[in-house]
Amino acid sequence: MSLLVVGSIALDSVETPHGIVTDALGGSATFFSYAASYFTPVRLVGVVGEDFPSAHREMLEGRRIDTSGLKIETHGKTFRWRGRYTGDMNMAETLEVHLNVFGAFDPEVPPAFRETPFVFLANGSPVVQRKVLEQVKNPTLIVADTMNLWIETQRDELLALLREVDGLVLNDGEARMLTEEINLVRAGWKVLELGPRFVIIKKGEHGALFLSRSETFVMPAFPLGEVVDPTGAGDSFAGGFMGYLASTGKPDPANLKTAMAYGTILASFNVEDFSLRRFQRTDRAEINHRLEQYREMMSL
Amino acid sequence: MSLLVVGSIALDSVETPHGIVTDALGGSATFFSYAASYFTPVRLVGVVGEDFPSAHREMLEGRRIDTSGLKIETHGKTFRWRGRYTGDMNMAETLEVHLNVFGAFDPEVPPAFRETPFVFLANGSPVVQRKVLEQVKNPTLIVADTMNLWIETQRDELLALLREVDGLVLNDGEARMLTEEINLVRAGWKVLELGPRFVIIKKGEHGALFLSRSETFVMPAFPLGEVVDPTGAGDSFAGGFMGYLASTGKPDPANLKTAMAYGTILASFNVEDFSLRRFQRTDRAEINHRLEQYREMMSL
Repeated sequence: MSLLVVGSIALDSVETPHGIVTDALGGSATFFSYAASYFTPVRLVGVVGEDFPSAHREMLEGRRIDTSGLKIETHGKTFRWRGRYTGDMNMAETLEVHLNVFGAFDPEVPPAFRETPFVFLANGSPVVQRKVLEQVKNPTLIVADTMNLWIETQRDELLALLREVDGLVLNDGEARMLTEEINLVRAGWKVLELGPRFVIIKKGEHGALFLSRSETFVMPAFPLGEVVDPTGAGDSFAGGFMGYLASTGKPDPANLKTAMAYGTILASFNVEDFSLRRFQRTDRAEINHRLEQYREMMSL
Repeated sequence: MSLLVVGSIALDSVETPHGIVTDALGGSATFFSYAASYFTPVRLVGVVGEDFPSAHREMLEGRRIDTSGLKIETHGKTFRWRGRYTGDMNMAETLEVHLNVFGAFDPEVPPAFRETPFVFLANGSPVVQRKVLEQVKNPTLIVADTMNLWIETQRDELLALLREVDGLVLNDGEARMLTEEINLVRAGWKVLELGPRFVIIKKGEHGALFLSRSETFVMPAFPLGEVVDPTGAGDSFAGGFMGYLASTGKPDPANLKTAMAYGTILASFNVEDFSLRRFQRTDRAEINHRLEQYREMMSL
């Protein structure tokens, strides 16, 4: 089944101990779409400026990513982020953010996308995320991402959103901030009281935790000897998770668990190079091979 | 097969958000022995002072823990540690340490213990750990633990020890300090170059990583809604790991992987209450039940 994602498309300038890239293709919806495209056709809704290289759009179209929902604002510039990772690279230091055209993003879901069964609301204002929900019809599954900024500045709007989604994806620090609970399992349980029927807490290099009322899944990160650039790892995780799930058509417990593992594997590929570079030189066979290695590392 | 452990026996005073205990039974060899005793007979070598309650010794004897190697120094006091955990309880704040009789610990392995096939050198000076190795005969497997203090102050002695052991257990910070490598997988590979044929890197609430030249195992921690006291979690992990392994008699890859899982489960019980309290109200059936739950949480 197809998968709709609404979120940011950015040009990232990133510095890590392994190098520097300037104006490389990034953004939550970009990483998500590429990761999901190994599993299912993706429908992308976002906005870029007149400076957005058409080659990027063609590259995405070359995957099964329908970019007819990608709006080009002719009098504006694309969202830009500049950041740096040092030490254990667990946290990005943001050096510059220019929201540009993404600052006034008012998502318009094309009519042809409105009955997409699987919907992912990538990180963005909960007000904007709810605007998407007003435009989609009878989705099978809606999952949202969020971040500390919205928890702090639009808490009520976020709580309203949470009553309308099936799943929430957020990182450990955000889960603690949202629920005021230090223990991550309890934080997850508190999220479930807010509306979603499942929550995924991403722990960066420590993996991810899935909680629903009846299921608990724990997935360590795939161990890597070299992490080049963590930018987009969380979005790649979500893309692998939702892409696989959409490909099955059925978000039951067994598929949700396998989806968590695919999310883990996609995140592991993402961090092995800057931007989308590592994705661009992998394929489903290599992804499945790594999943098999991963299974071997923890099968009991 | 039986299992020898040499290490500290302490009286711990611990404060966590869940309460306070004073002079509770602790120490690396204590947690290790109790955890291992669910799987195999344990032979304990350590030292305590004249103030050590005989009830503690009787309690250990009531498990399959042979305390004939426990020396009582009549003119000294038992090792005491006082510490506090706050916030996410990931790190202990040491408030007081009195090594007392453990400061001059010169381990003497009783003749009846010298041919024990499985040997664990709990955290202690590498000089003292090597003295144990001089006294044991033809062990099947020797595993050592260590800590930042020895990496900093007795590096050469530690490197000499590493050439004589089969496995090393240490935490993530210690692995980085020993190898000067931030990435944990690479840190693990560097440890293997120092002698051991496997290394286990413990990551606290994030689980553990096992590396040998041919195998990589990753184990997330068992997710818990309540962590009461993390003291002894690493030693309980090691006890579950070595105890299970000794019970199989054969440290092959399949048994090493299952042993990692048992280590994870024993650590999860340990942190659910102060001192040995949670261990004292569990049994092998409950341990196996939790292992089964754990398997379910990540089986693919």
